[in-house]
Amino acid sequence: MPKPLFIKRLDRIAIAGVGLLGGSVGLALRAAGYQGSLVGIGRRASSLQRALAAGAVDITTMDPAEGVDGAGAVIICTPLKHYERLLRQMAPALGKGAIVTDVGSAKVEAVRLGERILPDRVRFVGSHPMAGSEQTGVEYARADLFQRALCLVTPTPRTPPPAVTWARQFWTLLGGRPLVLDPARHDELLADASHLPHAVATAVVNVAARSGGIRLAGPGFADATRIASGDAEMWADILLTNRRSMLRSLDTLVKELSLLRRHLDKGDTAKLQDWLAAAKLARDAWISERYRKKVLPP
Amino acid sequence: MPKPLFIKRLDRIAIAGVGLLGGSVGLALRAAGYQGSLVGIGRRASSLQRALAAGAVDITTMDPAEGVDGAGAVIICTPLKHYERLLRQMAPALGKGAIVTDVGSAKVEAVRLGERILPDRVRFVGSHPMAGSEQTGVEYARADLFQRALCLVTPTPRTPPPAVTWARQFWTLLGGRPLVLDPARHDELLADASHLPHAVATAVVNVAARSGGIRLAGPGFADATRIASGDAEMWADILLTNRRSMLRSLDTLVKELSLLRRHLDKGDTAKLQDWLAAAKLARDAWISERYRKKVLPP
Repeated sequence: MPKPLFIKRLDRIAIAGVGLLGGSVGLALRAAGYQGSLVGIGRRASSLQRALAAGAVDITTMDPAEGVDGAGAVIICTPLKHYERLLRQMAPALGKGAIVTDVGSAKVEAVRLGERILPDRVRFVGSHPMAGSEQTGVEYARADLFQRALCLVTPTPRTPPPAVTWARQFWTLLGGRPLVLDPARHDELLADASHLPHAVATAVVNVAARSGGIRLAGPGFADATRIASGDAEMWADILLTNRRSMLRSLDTLVKELSLLRRHLDKGDTAKLQDWLAAAKLARDAWISERYRKKVLPP
Repeated sequence: MPKPLFIKRLDRIAIAGVGLLGGSVGLALRAAGYQGSLVGIGRRASSLQRALAAGAVDITTMDPAEGVDGAGAVIICTPLKHYERLLRQMAPALGKGAIVTDVGSAKVEAVRLGERILPDRVRFVGSHPMAGSEQTGVEYARADLFQRALCLVTPTPRTPPPAVTWARQFWTLLGGRPLVLDPARHDELLADASHLPHAVATAVVNVAARSGGIRLAGPGFADATRIASGDAEMWADILLTNRRSMLRSLDTLVKELSLLRRHLDKGDTAKLQDWLAAAKLARDAWISERYRKKVLPP
């Protein structure tokens, strides 16, 4: 069973995709004392160059097979739409027992591709660290990006148990708080926790920009819509990959808004206050829980 | 025509409601060099006591008539639902030429009450500084709360022009950026810029709390829903007072979400990307505009 010490003793770890997340994985590994080779795999020479300059990796290649050759572990940090091509290219070059994980935010699809494409000698498990920002690019990568971040690990009945242990220890080494859950449950919960807020922030900006209301917006608006400044291509990819849960989540939200509409329409102060207070209570409890050490299972 | 210097020379300014906003008005006046008396008017001895301790006011009273007696200017910083009672109580005691303004966030109703209840010898104009936080209470008051904040001034054809000039100069003195607009237009734009984001953040928290998804939420969720931790009573008051614009704004949002639903349902990557990119573009432009000096009219 691998220990963080064992992770540190790997000769080589490959990171496919060296943007904000991939770059931060490299920087966090170095900050945790990892001294082996960090191979950056990318599609553009310019981003690889910037990742090298940032100290996030120390070897780079545009050839995934070359990049994973001899790597004890591979962390996939590209947009989900590149997974299929990338997995096919790296599959033949992966060594026996190599660990492969990823950071994609729609796990049913990520895990389906990993399990379908990678050979049995490889130990694959999905991961999803709840870290990042609306920024993209290795310039924004930080060694402490995963500090205290919830790092979800999503095994299936087919996942080799050592891969789960490895992934838990890997994210712990990087400062995160690992939590194991089923990919389908992950996607449902994430739709509500991440994809829905993103979609809604986008819709609010579009409405306020069209009316001109955005000109009067203040700091509350700025925070509430920060995520709407995220990369459109990446988010289209995420929302579409988690489409089924996303549609359900959206319908639930519209029902919730129609509750609000009814309270407003009737001028029902008491019910409106209750509706607002329920959210305040839930959010305040969540905020204080996030600052406690222990992570409760969802 | 009053100059900031003239504002500073007033013997007495009364602040009705000494919470986050009222307290910050007091602290900001002091920081700007105002040396006259600051009278805090409140409904609870305990909050008045805390406002005194915070240095936000130096005289306190629970009697509005007593509080405004001899005041050259009165700033109303209470929830909107207290306006009517408060205005009636202070009306007989207000001196000739006294300026009255407020900080309420629904201007049609605030201005209607001010103009209906205050006598002609008083110069009333509505204001709305776009500043605050999800915190409440004088403990969170800050002398720099209005620095660079958009401070909306909402005259009607009945407003005496000197009151408009006075309010512009008052908010400038406190560090804000004044902008004059019509109360009805204010309410429409504010519904999109402030009330809608609030309502939507609340709905998102309620959905995510019910499903358990909130347990997996990260920093994006925390920012997007920060405003949902605001005071439920205050927000019920705001949303109901601006009910008509709010209902229209909500309906527009639901239409915008149904656009998203269609793109998702059809798996239309290009349209989904455009939808997301439009918001990113609008928000990024807004953010960079906010950091420029000049305020453009909406």
